[in-house]
Amino acid sequence: MIQNLYEDEEVERLDRDALKALQLLRLKKTITTALITPFYKERLMAVGIQSAEDIRTLEDIRKIPYTTKDDLREAYPYGLLAVDRDEIVRMHASSGTTGTPTVIYHTQKDLDNWTNMTVRSLKATGCHKGDVFQNMMTYGLFTGGIGLHYGAEKLGMLVIPASSGNTRRQFQLMKDFQTSTIHATPSYMLHLYSRMEEMGYSLSDFNLKRALIGAEPHSEEIRQKIEELFHIDAYNSYGLSEMNGPSVAFECTEKKGMHIWEDAYLVETIDRNSLEPVEDGVEGELVLTILIRTGTPILRYRTKDLTTVIPEACSCGRTSRRITRIKGRTDDMLIINGVNVFPSQIEEVIMKMPEIGTNYLIKVSKKGTLDQLTIQTEVGGDMFTDNAQDLHDLRRRIVEELQATITIKALVELHEPGFLPVQQGKAIRVIDERNVY
Amino acid sequence: MIQNLYEDEEVERLDRDALKALQLLRLKKTITTALITPFYKERLMAVGIQSAEDIRTLEDIRKIPYTTKDDLREAYPYGLLAVDRDEIVRMHASSGTTGTPTVIYHTQKDLDNWTNMTVRSLKATGCHKGDVFQNMMTYGLFTGGIGLHYGAEKLGMLVIPASSGNTRRQFQLMKDFQTSTIHATPSYMLHLYSRMEEMGYSLSDFNLKRALIGAEPHSEEIRQKIEELFHIDAYNSYGLSEMNGPSVAFECTEKKGMHIWEDAYLVETIDRNSLEPVEDGVEGELVLTILIRTGTPILRYRTKDLTTVIPEACSCGRTSRRITRIKGRTDDMLIINGVNVFPSQIEEVIMKMPEIGTNYLIKVSKKGTLDQLTIQTEVGGDMFTDNAQDLHDLRRRIVEELQATITIKALVELHEPGFLPVQQGKAIRVIDERNVY
Ligand SMILES: [Zn+2]
Ligand SMILES: [Zn+2]
Repeated sequence: MIQNLYEDEEVERLDRDALKALQLLRLKKTITTALITPFYKERLMAVGIQSAEDIRTLEDIRKIPYTTKDDLREAYPYGLLAVDRDEIVRMHASSGTTGTPTVIYHTQKDLDNWTNMTVRSLKATGCHKGDVFQNMMTYGLFTGGIGLHYGAEKLGMLVIPASSGNTRRQFQLMKDFQTSTIHATPSYMLHLYSRMEEMGYSLSDFNLKRALIGAEPHSEEIRQKIEELFHIDAYNSYGLSEMNGPSVAFECTEKKGMHIWEDAYLVETIDRNSLEPVEDGVEGELVLTILIRTGTPILRYRTKDLTTVIPEACSCGRTSRRITRIKGRTDDMLIINGVNVFPSQIEEVIMKMPEIGTNYLIKVSKKGTLDQLTIQTEVGGDMFTDNAQDLHDLRRRIVEELQATITIKALVELHEPGFLPVQQGKAIRVIDERNVY
Repeated sequence: MIQNLYEDEEVERLDRDALKALQLLRLKKTITTALITPFYKERLMAVGIQSAEDIRTLEDIRKIPYTTKDDLREAYPYGLLAVDRDEIVRMHASSGTTGTPTVIYHTQKDLDNWTNMTVRSLKATGCHKGDVFQNMMTYGLFTGGIGLHYGAEKLGMLVIPASSGNTRRQFQLMKDFQTSTIHATPSYMLHLYSRMEEMGYSLSDFNLKRALIGAEPHSEEIRQKIEELFHIDAYNSYGLSEMNGPSVAFECTEKKGMHIWEDAYLVETIDRNSLEPVEDGVEGELVLTILIRTGTPILRYRTKDLTTVIPEACSCGRTSRRITRIKGRTDDMLIINGVNVFPSQIEEVIMKMPEIGTNYLIKVSKKGTLDQLTIQTEVGGDMFTDNAQDLHDLRRRIVEELQATITIKALVELHEPGFLPVQQGKAIRVIDERNVY
């Protein structure tokens, strides 16, 4: 098995040449796998790649076109499946702009490999057997919760599968079980702190040592704030479901950028306009190829995330390169309390309501430390009603439909026609009042 | 390892004598484990059990006092822990009447054993590798979701970790991935059906074969209704977090009672008044001893669930006895949309509000196929206010506090003093308008 050429400890410290040799070996295997899928078979053949033999160096990957989220949608549901359906034991799906979800399939071996990466990530932050790990990320189709869960269990941490929400319960668990490690979004960490005193707790009730924060972009200031408020270390985590989920890249205890696990992911950064590769040290869009998955191979995936590869070796001794914190997205996706939301998803829902006019405004603001999504709409001229019950029902319907689509409970405002500023030229539909960066 | 004396397939069909011998072996091991815990050490010593040697037959278990939920609360958080904390990789906690949670710890081996039971349960209903398993039970601290998840993955089913809620998304997944097996509460199955047409789906969109239903008591009529509506088989599932979670007992394809996995659980039924054991075939409270867990041993646990042990052999060939569907609880616990709620939890929350009077009423009704919890309260005489904003804030605070405690969003009504019927003698605080049985 290729996976087992090296022990995990060893592979993290491989010299760069050996690491590249391993990458090439796995890339070839991945090409073979990709050629099984209808999607990549067509795409690779079109550029003259008929077998793994056509990839001789890591640079040969540049012959392959990028894969985008739209490609994944187009391939939905089975266009990127590389094994018999019987071999799949898990899928994770996320919804996208158009309503068509994307889906990633995992074999048991894929899950095992993913779990190994999460074990490695947890270790890099100093987590160890016996640590109490309170996982405040949502469990379910979202990979954030269940992803680290498996790794923490394998590492031998005491896993509290708290999932998200229910702040009072979180505090009680943190206190009663002397939680050492929290996994949460940065927003939720701040929210926890803001409710601590009022809920009758103080820092001395807890035994917190570290927080693993991810699932939304945040600034160094926010990280430091979390560290100062709780007197802990906060480590940045990076992942995306297309590349399994959490543990694509993770900070080590040096806290100077996130180690991207290069034996599992082939890293490129590209100029977001020319789409040409840029050098290490230059900011660009992160492009990733997953080298450890057989269920759903993905080559050169445009993550839309802006970052910079740090070429210098890390003083921790791990030889994988690091990436800087994610600076933002190259498109207009909103991240609201850790959930990805496309304005077009919102538009789609409200435009389906005949009672609602075409003018609308999406506002994202901070309510305490959490994000608040507000949708301002106008009740359409023809269908205008001032019957309170009708308006109440209409608003409730919109709230429910939105929640079904984007999983977020929005505040929906219904106004009389003409309330919103008239849009001219390119409409400004989104007002993000948060100060995330 | 005792666990590996038999293969799973074999142990399900062991002749009764061999099964009893295996139970005795495991019971002795469990006694040894229990004697490590502060709680059982005291309790077992008090009845003269100083080592596993003092248990010579299965009947000797009757020397041991019952363990109750209150005992678990008293032992919280570490009184029932039988291994070094470092050996624990998972905990599941539930809150109870008094607000003190109960907690169960699992070692890796415990989780593996639990997973084996869930694999066995799934197989009993005809599930197999390649089946698409959409798990609509909540993932997290609640054992319902994550419990069957592990087993389904191990069996090689394609697991869709949908978790609960988001009906529209559930339909989309059911259609796109041709889900064969659903795991949900009976209420949610009925809810799904009631929304199907309006959400634009019909049965022909799906490939449903079976539903595994549990987490709330339900009648045979409800099961048959689910089967008829969806044209599927519905199988009853039984479990409780104190005994790991789902897969304590599960129906086989004969659908004539739930096989209780007797190599893992020692079964007794007792008269709920005299607390004396009753014969097979006589209804009583189910009392269980878990034989396959080292993290948190629990002996003779009074489940409060009423059932009857069916002594006759099942035509499927499995030799474990079956229990009839759970008829109800022996105490006043409410099960609201699958969540356990004690009226005292609600009382505790509202009585903490100085603005609220002492008279209140808890109503549980059906809203469509789901349960609706309504709390009627009176704003106290001294603190009475008719300021709309104050009342709005007060109601919101109660709703939030309730949700933090019982995880359910209740409808809270504030009335003027004197609105509710005056209570005389033993107060009637709970009106359950549902017709569950
Ligand atoms: Zn490092
Ligand atoms: Zn049977």
